[in-house]
Amino acid sequence: MTYTEIEYEVRDGIATITLNRPHRMNAYTYTMRAEMLDAFDRIDADDDVRVVVVTGAGKAFCAGADLGGGGDTFNKDKSHDMFAGEDDVLEDGTPRDGGGTVALRIARCLKPVIGAFNGAAVGVGVTMTLPMDVRLASEKAKFGFVFARRGIVTEAASSWFLPRLVGIAQAMEWAATGRVFDAREALDGGLVSRVYPPDELLPAAYALAREIADNTSAVSVAAIRRLMWSGLSAPSPWDAHVNDSRLMAALGGAPDAAEGVTSFLEKRPAEFPMRVSKDLPGEVPDWPVR
Amino acid sequence: MTYTEIEYEVRDGIATITLNRPHRMNAYTYTMRAEMLDAFDRIDADDDVRVVVVTGAGKAFCAGADLGGGGDTFNKDKSHDMFAGEDDVLEDGTPRDGGGTVALRIARCLKPVIGAFNGAAVGVGVTMTLPMDVRLASEKAKFGFVFARRGIVTEAASSWFLPRLVGIAQAMEWAATGRVFDAREALDGGLVSRVYPPDELLPAAYALAREIADNTSAVSVAAIRRLMWSGLSAPSPWDAHVNDSRLMAALGGAPDAAEGVTSFLEKRPAEFPMRVSKDLPGEVPDWPVR
Amino acid sequence: MTYTEIEYEVRDGIATITLNRPHRMNAYTYTMRAEMLDAFDRIDADDDVRVVVVTGAGKAFCAGADLGGGGDTFNKDKSHDMFAGEDDVLEDGTPRDGGGTVALRIARCLKPVIGAFNGAAVGVGVTMTLPMDVRLASEKAKFGFVFARRGIVTEAASSWFLPRLVGIAQAMEWAATGRVFDAREALDGGLVSRVYPPDELLPAAYALAREIADNTSAVSVAAIRRLMWSGLSAPSPWDAHVNDSRLMAALGGAPDAAEGVTSFLEKRPAEFPMRVSKDLPGEVPDWPVR
Repeated sequence: MTYTEIEYEVRDGIATITLNRPHRMNAYTYTMRAEMLDAFDRIDADDDVRVVVVTGAGKAFCAGADLGGGGDTFNKDKSHDMFAGEDDVLEDGTPRDGGGTVALRIARCLKPVIGAFNGAAVGVGVTMTLPMDVRLASEKAKFGFVFARRGIVTEAASSWFLPRLVGIAQAMEWAATGRVFDAREALDGGLVSRVYPPDELLPAAYALAREIADNTSAVSVAAIRRLMWSGLSAPSPWDAHVNDSRLMAALGGAPDAAEGVTSFLEKRPAEFPMRVSKDLPGEVPDWPVR
Repeated sequence: MTYTEIEYEVRDGIATITLNRPHRMNAYTYTMRAEMLDAFDRIDADDDVRVVVVTGAGKAFCAGADLGGGGDTFNKDKSHDMFAGEDDVLEDGTPRDGGGTVALRIARCLKPVIGAFNGAAVGVGVTMTLPMDVRLASEKAKFGFVFARRGIVTEAASSWFLPRLVGIAQAMEWAATGRVFDAREALDGGLVSRVYPPDELLPAAYALAREIADNTSAVSVAAIRRLMWSGLSAPSPWDAHVNDSRLMAALGGAPDAAEGVTSFLEKRPAEFPMRVSKDLPGEVPDWPVR
Repeated sequence: MTYTEIEYEVRDGIATITLNRPHRMNAYTYTMRAEMLDAFDRIDADDDVRVVVVTGAGKAFCAGADLGGGGDTFNKDKSHDMFAGEDDVLEDGTPRDGGGTVALRIARCLKPVIGAFNGAAVGVGVTMTLPMDVRLASEKAKFGFVFARRGIVTEAASSWFLPRLVGIAQAMEWAATGRVFDAREALDGGLVSRVYPPDELLPAAYALAREIADNTSAVSVAAIRRLMWSGLSAPSPWDAHVNDSRLMAALGGAPDAAEGVTSFLEKRPAEFPMRVSKDLPGEVPDWPVR
């Protein structure tokens, strides 16, 4: 697939996805959705990708739905921008919420994903980032869960992710007011982990990506990411314990564990031999996908 | 129903419930419980109510159970203040915890609820507020999950709400000590969102209520409130995705969505035509009520 | 059981468990695991224990797995330090993750548990503390979820507990980087509740323990601890409401409730007559153990 609305680049173990419709503030479309889904499939399949950074071209991160369709923007019979295609519907035939397909794809990604908010992230522009692992923001970023001001609902499974990320009180305040708020409020509320001057944002995102890529086993990180994220759905810690036991049995005797301990004792950088594409144990859990 | 222990007033789209037994620090009773349940039924049925503010008359918010019954206060065979009536029992005949019936009614409310703590909120006086969307406090407010000091347990489903609101460590510290703490500790611990000088509390609560009432679709807010709160019980984000898809399909082509986008593009205030009483889609999810 | 790798002492209602292999930074072993499990059984059975404090001897809290086994440390076929014994396996025969057996035992404890981090807590040294109620730290404490740097996965059910304690973003950042971080980062991230100068740590832990032991009903605290912790697994607040109703019915007419209210009205310290060993109601919920 050739990308027209995102840029995709892999360098030194880090994939960068840049939302790339700067003339429309990187507003989200049906095409952008398809390209992001494709990019995350490439990321999972490519052992040269250890970590993902997602950011926006120009002044905005993503302004949300492209409202070029006017009052019909969210009408499934007149626009397909907000929905998945006809070949991707619920069991009962309901068209899938398109933003949700992106968010849930990110939730299952085998590599850590860092969101770098260079500017405004509104509507689906912010909700699709909630299943990313860490969100970092420029001082110039703005955010808005504006759905109630547009007559629709919070989408992209954000009613599930947002309260678990920032607490139900903060989630309801942002969603019920639909207000647009600045990076400081996002930081105080727990939506982003840190705020930087604009020209320090991407360096900070890449430094965090490097910290992961340079020090850890890719297989461990993939397994941990699935354990933690899908574990948000696990009924109890006893379910986690079952997964832990199987994965410790599977990985404790594998080459990365030997290298991890040996390199630590020898006080040298580890060189982990295992690869996600072929060495990920079958015991790694997954979400109850619907 | 004529209210004797609460005041109920609707003005400019905002309902105010005032706990009104100031001679007893608004201590909670069987009657107050019945009146609150009735008020929330009115709120859901009345399209003139967009947002709810709950506060207390006089110096206290709610001192918890009225201990006028002395050592028998919590004894189901000698007092009914803490229990629901004989016509509202569990399947096995156990009398329902009365505070829980209020808390769970609030959890299902179709309008956002703002708690405005003007003074002490202790025992059921604070637990019944946990399913409110936002809690704001006066600098003079005090809080206490004092149940362990009274020989009983955290009630009003607070063992479920409190850890999800403030984290299990903070919840356990407050509940295991039973300590009474001030507004600053409540703010630092995440129990309240903001603290104000006493005479700025209600204006702040009403300003937040206005921000919601003046800018949003009532149907959107009702659907979002149910998505988020009942979504705390959803097994996984794929469940949220199913709900999102159905609601985006139902609402994306409806009048509020057209007005929401059009008014935004025309840079004018929206005038949403839809009403909760008749236009709320059947796709809005609900809790697994027991 | 005579302990060789922990110390166990009960004084004035408070049990102290001291991890005690200071020559190995209290690194975790198969023996330490067995001794901790035994100690928590004693704690639950002993009415003279109201609260538990866990700390480390010497400079460290617990350095994690003892890496004396080198590259075979985590290999179930060559070392048993990280696994439960042959008589404690999953239904399918998989050896249980040993750290998980400690964490889950603590999760079910009937007495509140306070972790006092006097120094480094790394790997299982920190994950096994996540089901404690409150974590307090010395300014000299350090923490690390270093599993991805060793080629293994987060264990001790930490993929379940950690995101619920500190949020998924903070959990993933710590687990994906495997970084070692100081007490300040632990405090900011919500892993510990408060940080103290080294010589103020244990006094603070004991002061908190005293606040619980001196003011509350042991039966109330045990019931509340189970309600809250196992309630993290409850599908919805309606499940909590069922538990609340049964426990309020069972305890509201019992002696501790009478004493709790009477002593409060008489403005004197309560002397609760009930004992966990014989008076804990059958209605107290438990986890869905696997």
